[in-house]
Amino acid sequence: MLDKVLDHLRHDHEAAIDRLCDFLRIPSVSTDPAYAEHCLKATDWVVDQLRACGGEVSIHETPRHPLVIAHFEGGNPDAPRALFYGHYDVQPPDPLEKWTTPPFEPTIRDGKLYARGSSDDKGQVMCFIEALRAWHDIAGKPPVPVTVFIEGEEECGSVSLDAFIEKHRDLLKADVAVVSDTAMWGPDQPAITYGLRGLLYFDVKLHGPGRDLHSGVYGGSVPNPCTQLARVLGKLFNEDNAVDIEGFYDDVAPLTEDERRRWANLNFSDDAWAQSIGLTDGKDLSGEIGFSTLERRWARPSCDVCGLYGGYSGEGAKTVIPSFAGAKVSFRLAATQDPNRISDLFRDFLKANTPAGCRWEIEEFGRARPVVIPIDSPWIAAAQQAVETGCGREAVLNREGATIPVVATFKELLGLDTLLIGFGLHDDNLHSPNEKFELNNFRMGCLTHASLLAKLAG
Amino acid sequence: MLDKVLDHLRHDHEAAIDRLCDFLRIPSVSTDPAYAEHCLKATDWVVDQLRACGGEVSIHETPRHPLVIAHFEGGNPDAPRALFYGHYDVQPPDPLEKWTTPPFEPTIRDGKLYARGSSDDKGQVMCFIEALRAWHDIAGKPPVPVTVFIEGEEECGSVSLDAFIEKHRDLLKADVAVVSDTAMWGPDQPAITYGLRGLLYFDVKLHGPGRDLHSGVYGGSVPNPCTQLARVLGKLFNEDNAVDIEGFYDDVAPLTEDERRRWANLNFSDDAWAQSIGLTDGKDLSGEIGFSTLERRWARPSCDVCGLYGGYSGEGAKTVIPSFAGAKVSFRLAATQDPNRISDLFRDFLKANTPAGCRWEIEEFGRARPVVIPIDSPWIAAAQQAVETGCGREAVLNREGATIPVVATFKELLGLDTLLIGFGLHDDNLHSPNEKFELNNFRMGCLTHASLLAKLAG
Repeated sequence: MLDKVLDHLRHDHEAAIDRLCDFLRIPSVSTDPAYAEHCLKATDWVVDQLRACGGEVSIHETPRHPLVIAHFEGGNPDAPRALFYGHYDVQPPDPLEKWTTPPFEPTIRDGKLYARGSSDDKGQVMCFIEALRAWHDIAGKPPVPVTVFIEGEEECGSVSLDAFIEKHRDLLKADVAVVSDTAMWGPDQPAITYGLRGLLYFDVKLHGPGRDLHSGVYGGSVPNPCTQLARVLGKLFNEDNAVDIEGFYDDVAPLTEDERRRWANLNFSDDAWAQSIGLTDGKDLSGEIGFSTLERRWARPSCDVCGLYGGYSGEGAKTVIPSFAGAKVSFRLAATQDPNRISDLFRDFLKANTPAGCRWEIEEFGRARPVVIPIDSPWIAAAQQAVETGCGREAVLNREGATIPVVATFKELLGLDTLLIGFGLHDDNLHSPNEKFELNNFRMGCLTHASLLAKLAG
Repeated sequence: MLDKVLDHLRHDHEAAIDRLCDFLRIPSVSTDPAYAEHCLKATDWVVDQLRACGGEVSIHETPRHPLVIAHFEGGNPDAPRALFYGHYDVQPPDPLEKWTTPPFEPTIRDGKLYARGSSDDKGQVMCFIEALRAWHDIAGKPPVPVTVFIEGEEECGSVSLDAFIEKHRDLLKADVAVVSDTAMWGPDQPAITYGLRGLLYFDVKLHGPGRDLHSGVYGGSVPNPCTQLARVLGKLFNEDNAVDIEGFYDDVAPLTEDERRRWANLNFSDDAWAQSIGLTDGKDLSGEIGFSTLERRWARPSCDVCGLYGGYSGEGAKTVIPSFAGAKVSFRLAATQDPNRISDLFRDFLKANTPAGCRWEIEEFGRARPVVIPIDSPWIAAAQQAVETGCGREAVLNREGATIPVVATFKELLGLDTLLIGFGLHDDNLHSPNEKFELNNFRMGCLTHASLLAKLAG
C-alpha cells in the first residue's frame, strides 16, 4: 500500500506545488495586527485542506490568531497516534526592496520556490498534509491515527500555545510528536534531530549610586555599575572558557564515546562554519577547551551575554558614572541539566558577587527544558526507515543547539517525545529576504512523511 | 591702598549685585543656536564692563561665539602679569518647570541669588571684574598688569579655545593664570585648588562575527563580542581594585606624609559623601585598597567604564550573539602620569587581550594632562594671603578629581600655573534648575580677587 501512496505522491507533485503556492499567497504575518484578516484566511485555508484529507477539524480562538486541530482515524486503530505540529503564520517580509520577486507571489527559479514562509513553515507543513492526502486518496485513511495541530503565533512567540495545551491535553493526546521545522544536514543529506538544548534567559541589572555622577569628581571612590557589572560577567568564565558557576556542570552527562565518534564522522568543517559567519577560519572559533565545535553546540551547555547596556553609548565622550548597568544573559542547557536548578545557581552566583554599594534587579524571560530522545528508541528507528524510503539515503542523527519551546512543552505537558524531521536547508533565508524552499526537498518531505505513517504502524 | 579698595567694594556691593543681575538677564546659552544673538549681547556687555574698568578690549570672532580679551596696565609694570579666565556663556535652563523663579529673571531669596549662570560662571567672573573696577575707581589701575580672557563656548566644549590660544600666545602672555570656576570647601570655608587629574577617554569596540547570530545555534562555539568585552574589561582591575595594566602605576608619585596628614585633617565624612549620592553609608563606597576617599579622588588615578553597548538591550529577550559590542572607558590620571604613555599602555593591554576571532576598533576622545602647582610656590602663598584678607580665614588647599581642560592648556601652550580660587558651593545646582550663588560668597570673591592683585604685586 505504501508503494501506491508514494507513486501517487510522485504523480501528483505538480498539483501539490500549486497548492503550496496558494498557501504562500496568503500574507499571514502574525506579529503585525494589520495582517490579522490574512491570518484568518490562512486558518480557513488549512481547515479546508485538512477536511479534504478526511480530518475532523476544529478551530480554536485565542486572543490573537486561531489554532487548528484535526483528528484522523488510523487504518490500525491500535497503532500509536502521531501528533503533527506546524504553524501557518510567517515572518514579516521586510525589507521588501531586497526581494528579487515579491514575497507573496511564489516564484520558481532553478528548482527553488521563492516566497515568505516557503521553508518556515508552510512548505514543511504541506509535506505532512500532502502525505495525509495521498493516504486518504489511496487508502481512505492514514495507517495510524493522526492529530494535526497547526498554530498561527509561532513567529510572535507562541503566546497562546502553552496555556492552550495545558487546557486541552485530551484533544492532543498522542504517542509521539512529529515536527517539521528544522533543516537537513546538507543538500541531499536528510537529518533526524534527536536533541535540543534548554534555555534560561535573564535580564540582570546592577544598581549603584542613586543618580549619574561625574567620573572626574567621583571616579575611583564610588561603585560604578558599568565597571562592576563587567567584572562580575568576566567572572562567569574560567580560563578554559567553561562556565565558572559552582555546581554548574554537576548534572552534565559526559558525551559517550559512540556519540563523539559519530559526530566526528559527520565531516563538519570548522573552517567552513567560521567562514559562513564572516570569520577567517576555524582558528577564529572559540569555546570550551576539550570539545569539538559540534560537541560545544549540541551537547555542552553555554553562557552568552546577548546584550549590554548602561551609561553613555552615543557618539563621542560623556564622563559619567551611571546609576545602573545591565546585561541580557542566556544559558543553553545540556540534556541533563535542570533549568530550575541552574537558575538558582546563577542567582546565587550573582548574590555572592554583589559589588559593595550595589544591588541586583533580576528578571527572567523564558525557561525551557532540554530534550533528548534516546537514539535507540523505536520512534527513531521508524523515522530512520521512513527517511531511507522517502529520500533514498540514511538520515544523519544530529542534535541542535537551539531550543524549540513546543518540543519541551510536548514533553512536559503531554509526555511526548518529538521526532524532528526537517526538510529546510541552512541557506533557505529564513526570516530574511528571498526565503526559498527547494522543490526536491518538498518532494522528499512528502514521501518521507507518507512513509513515516506506515513505519509507525509497525 | 588695598584697604581703601576693599572698603570701596564693601560700600559698592549693592550696585555690584545689580550689575551681576543685568548680566544674568542675558540668556547667553551657547549650545543652542537659537540663543546666538544673546551670546553677542553678553559679549558686548562684558566688553562695556571691562572698558569701564580701564581695560583695552578686543573682540575675537570664532566660528561660534566671540572671545573677549582685555589688557590692563599695572601700577607696578614689573610685577607679574595675571591672566584671568572665565566664560560668559551658560547651560540651557531646561527643565523650565522645575525652576521656582524664571532662570533669566535673577531673584534673591534668603541671601541667595537664583538664576542660570549665577554660580557657573557669571557670578564668579563678576567677582574679578568688580575687583578690577574697585582698583580702577580708587587707584586708577590694578597694582599688577592684568589680562582678562572671557570665552563664550565653555558650556559647549570650548571648541574654539585651544586653537585660539595656540595662535594668540602673544596676546595671552602672562606669569600666572587665575580661574574662578570651582567651589569652596564648604560654606565659609574657602579653598585653593592646586591640582587636577588628567583625562583619557576611549570608545573601544570589539568586533566578532560578521553578523548577528542565534545564541542557540551558535552559542558556545563562536566568539561573542558582548561576553568577551566584559571579560577583557573585568581584567582591567585586580582584587585590590587597582588598575591591572602593566606599567600603569610606574609614574604615579606616592603621596607625601604631609599631604596625607593634611587631607586626613579636612574632616571629610565618608558617610555624608555616600549619602549625598544615594548610598547608605561609607561602607557602600569602594576604590583602590589602602587609600582614603580623598586620596582616591584627588591623587590616585582611576579607570571607569562610562558606558556599555552591544546586542539587545530592549524589553524582554532576544537570543542573539551580536557582531560587536563596545564600551566607553575613561582614565583619570594622577599628577605625574603622562597621558600619551597611558594611552599606549591601554592600547597594548587591549591588543594583548584580543579574543580569538575578534578585532578592536579604538577611538580616543579627549586627552588632558594632569596639573599640580607646588604648594610651596609663591603663587599659592599670594593666594593664601588674599583669601585670608578677603574671607577672614585660611583657605583649605585641596585638589580636584576632575579635569578643567583650559588649565592644562594654559600649562601646555602658555607655560602658566593656574590658581583655582572658586566661590561656588557644592549645592549651587550647576547645570540644574534653581542654580544659585550665595551673595556672601560673591562678596568674599570680590574682596579676595582685589586682595590677590595686591598680593601678586609682592
